[in-house]
Amino acid sequence: MARTQGSHSGITGPKIREAALRLFAQQGYAAVSMRQIAKEVGVQAGALYNYTPDKQSLLFSLMKGHMAELLAAWDAVPPAAGAMERLRAFTGFHIRFHQERPDAVFIAYMELRNLTAENFAVIETLRRDYENGVEGILKEGGEQGVFRISDTKIATLAVIAMLNGVNTWYRSEGRLSLDEVERVYWGMVQKAVSA
Amino acid sequence: MARTQGSHSGITGPKIREAALRLFAQQGYAAVSMRQIAKEVGVQAGALYNYTPDKQSLLFSLMKGHMAELLAAWDAVPPAAGAMERLRAFTGFHIRFHQERPDAVFIAYMELRNLTAENFAVIETLRRDYENGVEGILKEGGEQGVFRISDTKIATLAVIAMLNGVNTWYRSEGRLSLDEVERVYWGMVQKAVSA
Repeated sequence: MARTQGSHSGITGPKIREAALRLFAQQGYAAVSMRQIAKEVGVQAGALYNYTPDKQSLLFSLMKGHMAELLAAWDAVPPAAGAMERLRAFTGFHIRFHQERPDAVFIAYMELRNLTAENFAVIETLRRDYENGVEGILKEGGEQGVFRISDTKIATLAVIAMLNGVNTWYRSEGRLSLDEVERVYWGMVQKAVSA
Repeated sequence: MARTQGSHSGITGPKIREAALRLFAQQGYAAVSMRQIAKEVGVQAGALYNYTPDKQSLLFSLMKGHMAELLAAWDAVPPAAGAMERLRAFTGFHIRFHQERPDAVFIAYMELRNLTAENFAVIETLRRDYENGVEGILKEGGEQGVFRISDTKIATLAVIAMLNGVNTWYRSEGRLSLDEVERVYWGMVQKAVSA
């Protein structure tokens, strides 16, 4: 039975993205060939090129998609009243969003080195947008007198790095629930920035 | 002029390690061949196998060497009086040690996935040793009443992750000196754990 290009791409696209994400995370971008991705999906290499012009575009699309999803998800969190509550909401959001996407997070940090300069600039802009949102909360809290932060830019990066660390050790079958992890991290973040 | 195996290895060994570290950091372990490393050093592939039995052993040796160096360097820091001062010394030490070795640090985190189970276990034990040293300071400070920490294990990982973040953004030609960076991070670490 003949399928249209549209419906074919609609099914194959997400499978290609899943396979590429998994293979890039396991082996690293440079070690993975388009042929390998095609084999993983179960299509001919040619079918891959119907979906993406090349491996660089695929990596860029995955990284851009991850950042866009992150920004949209954080935008969708209803803004809490006051900088302290907004920072608490951010702490929980960031831990949970990243916990659900270990491969995408791993690639977002590790494969920056393999982006072309042009693509790198786009990803950096999206990352800055995310960081600026957090820095906005820290600045607001400073103005409200609830935070005391000597450098809001560094504090932003420090908080994000601290929370990113969860992905390196948290296992859902471990001694702590994600609620407990969130509570412990929030305690430290809160103290680190408080006046 | 004939050279002994000993003197040959003495010169070539460090060059192989440097080249492997650089190539693994740039391209990822899986994408780099022994032939490429040999070419980078300027020796025949056979000369590499005089030095290391295979690529896995080379990766393991680099990662183990990095962790052993980290542990020895921290052991060599004269112990300050009191948990607060020891944590301050740790903060400065950790930032500076990692800042000087971006490639080794990158590999230490990124290539865990490519270690055999046996090699992974050795690296994990060394990492635990390092973490246990930090947790010891946090526990001591808790007993002395200068720190208030709900979970010293998580606090250890959170502090280390926060400090590791410096490597992702710090540039020596940037707006802040390493002394200033250390001061800002110490301010946050201190508040995060203080009673």
